Amino acid sequence: MTDPAPDVALAVDIGGTKVDAALVTPEGSVLRETVARRPTGRASTREAIATSIRAAAAAARAAGGPGSRVLGIGVGSAGPVNLPAGSISPINLPTAADLVITEVLAGLAPDAPVALALDGTCIALAEHWLGELAGCSDGLAMVVSTGVGGGFIANGRPVTGTSGNAGHIGQIRVRTRDADDPVASTLEAIAAGPGTVAWARSQGWDGQTGEDLAAAYRSGSAIAERAVARSAAAVGEAIATATTLYDLQTVAIAGGFVNVADDYIDRVHAAVQQAALHPYARRVRVTRSALAGDGPLLGAAALILRQ
Amino acid sequence: MTDPAPDVALAVDIGGTKVDAALVTPEGSVLRETVARRPTGRASTREAIATSIRAAAAAARAAGGPGSRVLGIGVGSAGPVNLPAGSISPINLPTAADLVITEVLAGLAPDAPVALALDGTCIALAEHWLGELAGCSDGLAMVVSTGVGGGFIANGRPVTGTSGNAGHIGQIRVRTRDADDPVASTLEAIAAGPGTVAWARSQGWDGQTGEDLAAAYRSGSAIAERAVARSAAAVGEAIATATTLYDLQTVAIAGGFVNVADDYIDRVHAAVQQAALHPYARRVRVTRSALAGDGPLLGAAALILRQ
Repeated sequence: MTDPAPDVALAVDIGGTKVDAALVTPEGSVLRETVARRPTGRASTREAIATSIRAAAAAARAAGGPGSRVLGIGVGSAGPVNLPAGSISPINLPTAADLVITEVLAGLAPDAPVALALDGTCIALAEHWLGELAGCSDGLAMVVSTGVGGGFIANGRPVTGTSGNAGHIGQIRVRTRDADDPVASTLEAIAAGPGTVAWARSQGWDGQTGEDLAAAYRSGSAIAERAVARSAAAVGEAIATATTLYDLQTVAIAGGFVNVADDYIDRVHAAVQQAALHPYARRVRVTRSALAGDGPLLGAAALILRQ
Repeated sequence: MTDPAPDVALAVDIGGTKVDAALVTPEGSVLRETVARRPTGRASTREAIATSIRAAAAAARAAGGPGSRVLGIGVGSAGPVNLPAGSISPINLPTAADLVITEVLAGLAPDAPVALALDGTCIALAEHWLGELAGCSDGLAMVVSTGVGGGFIANGRPVTGTSGNAGHIGQIRVRTRDADDPVASTLEAIAAGPGTVAWARSQGWDGQTGEDLAAAYRSGSAIAERAVARSAAAVGEAIATATTLYDLQTVAIAGGFVNVADDYIDRVHAAVQQAALHPYARRVRVTRSALAGDGPLLGAAALILRQ
């Protein structure tokens, strides 16, 4: 006799370019043989996006075999979301505005509840369950990549806010607002990969990508060094704001752009020290996520397994 | 026969210039005949501050008569505080750094617990109990006066953070940080009464106080109008940051400087609309506190009566 297939959560992560799905065990293992990916994207129709979401979830479900029981479907999505309505309106998927997730996934796992959250909330849940926010009553999980997002833990619980959108740290301002270009002063515009690469190019650097910038940094390019410093300073200033407001113990940062420099996290931490006025805010621990990219799926699963 | 004296909380509010104390009923009435005030202040010795705190609390306690039972002592304090240590270190009371509140109040009401919180947390608790945040799961209570402070409600509970200092919204930046003057870019420096009056004077206005500025505004002074607009814009930008991060339903604003202009709250609300990028953040309700200055004492009492 073999062991029976375990009870699992079906986790779904809806992003601007693709949707991932997988089965996750109550111990927090992503079952690798169940991982499924389908495309989304700004050019996709509403129907194509809904079909991709459902197809990825169905493929992950089927890969678990007939014996596995799905306890529920946890869905994390790029924002904004509307939790009271159960719908998503990702900025990068304009055709999917107000897409109702329970309708997209109806019948996929009969009698299994469907729980929705912002992707930022999911990474906070994942870090709180299995990562750098474990045991932390008040913390922030961030992603610095092609965008900047995040999610908060307060009083040991995820903060969703009124409509589910708490955690959009990329959209706060770290520079004086420019009425002619209100986006330019936001953390995401300044510190994410695309904005940092664009700034470096404006200074005369001729690379194209974040990987190019990382290579230039390693080889001692002065412009790359200034570009990395500029990004890390802005992330540190945003964290100083967040921890001044919420008195955080730990901030865990994930996302590919963190790898632009070996000392990126150290630079962020130093920037927090400089920017925060109160000693309590300067005490925050800043660390790299150790979840190796599994945060969004683990957090979506946590919506089912950890409530 | 008369009714027996009610069970009450002994509420204490420690500020930079004075300490207030009063008995508060479980229904949220501040018993006026018990209100006591003693001086604090930057020039006071540590012993004088401790004596004032204890004397105000003792006077309020005594005014309740022998029949009233004190269920506990709730203390709100200007920040920072250190909740794990039970101590306060108000910026404006430097001699009182690390003053342990349970030691100051020892023996005053035997067997009654002592609970400490930041004054900003207390105003959030008061608004959530009896004010504009009643029934609100996610909100912010602010004071705009000679300083700017606040406290958050998330998931229907007060947010204290790691050391009790969550809510210090006056110390976040709403302008690009100036390395030579790191305080100048903060909300408090720009928007509170003293900074606004100083800015108006720098523009050629010759008044001295917030009351003078209010009178000038009413009489149509162009400089006063610009000064009020500048303060309200900064408050609105800080609220846009807070509600982008925490997806707030309601922000309630108390404090004397709100009265500088009849349309101050409307201006703040308009500034939030302009500054917030996401529709969810622009939906926040901004309103004037209706607690008539009782917020700090009611919130301190809530630490005992509402836990």
